[in-house]
Amino acid sequence: MKFGIVLFPSKKLQDLANSYRKRYDPHYALIPPHLTLKAPFELNEEQIPAVSALLRDIAGRTKPVSLNIAKFSSFSPVNNAIYLKVQATEELDQLQTALNQNDLSTGEPEYAFVPHITIGQKLSDDEHSDVLGQLRMTSIDHEEVIDRFHLLYQLENGSWTVYETFHLGREE
Amino acid sequence: MKFGIVLFPSKKLQDLANSYRKRYDPHYALIPPHLTLKAPFELNEEQIPAVSALLRDIAGRTKPVSLNIAKFSSFSPVNNAIYLKVQATEELDQLQTALNQNDLSTGEPEYAFVPHITIGQKLSDDEHSDVLGQLRMTSIDHEEVIDRFHLLYQLENGSWTVYETFHLGREE
Repeated sequence: MKFGIVLFPSKKLQDLANSYRKRYDPHYALIPPHLTLKAPFELNEEQIPAVSALLRDIAGRTKPVSLNIAKFSSFSPVNNAIYLKVQATEELDQLQTALNQNDLSTGEPEYAFVPHITIGQKLSDDEHSDVLGQLRMTSIDHEEVIDRFHLLYQLENGSWTVYETFHLGREE
Repeated sequence: MKFGIVLFPSKKLQDLANSYRKRYDPHYALIPPHLTLKAPFELNEEQIPAVSALLRDIAGRTKPVSLNIAKFSSFSPVNNAIYLKVQATEELDQLQTALNQNDLSTGEPEYAFVPHITIGQKLSDDEHSDVLGQLRMTSIDHEEVIDRFHLLYQLENGSWTVYETFHLGREE
């Protein structure tokens, strides 16, 4: 089974993201707006309890994280995804690192972690530049604290179901 | 904010349910296949921690529940919803009761709890009888054990995001 690890931002921010995703993101119906902490990886049934315990341990020794959002940005020219740019913080970096090393390493080459909440993807070049041009003129100044992350698995139709919630900074 | 409490069945059962929901359930894209334990209810931000603590307490003193599914059924003539009928068990009844009484009572009139996983709804009368007729000839014999339930909240677009997972039979 394919698993992934994400943060869900507040309802307010999810509603804002969905107002764009509805038009610009073909994944709109597959998963709520999210910040990916660990890209999709394979786990078989027998591995789940150990991974779950490891995630609980990581969560327990990580403080709740701040999401500061000040602008829209894009991964262009790598791809035409547009996103809410989340300001890098030490806590967020540490959490992402912990979720991608040692027993949780998937052996994939490591890319720099760019925390973001996607609001559009797979856009044509023209649409991408139109939408990004408009959004760059939009001002955002949003800050919130998130105290949990979620382990999800993917169904055959491409949608994601939550397997478990992990609480940041809470020993369980 | 509107909250709800559900069980997610196994991936296997969700995939089966989705193969029907895709065609017959307009809620297909809003939430994964689920068994509703508590109908949508309102909570404001300040109430969430107490409700979460109450749910953790209920989960801790409830054993994992068996989902036994032997057939498709329908709520007709009340409405044209078709579902996988989940056999009532004492544990499932007790869990549903605990989630709907005392501090968690919403004051709504109580209906008999009919545990089910919806696979089609809002069908026309003709479609309902066609689909149900076919499904009644399909044999199912599925049993699984579920060790968690989830508290979800609804976004403005009608979709649901998981707020928290609660583990049955685990003291936290």
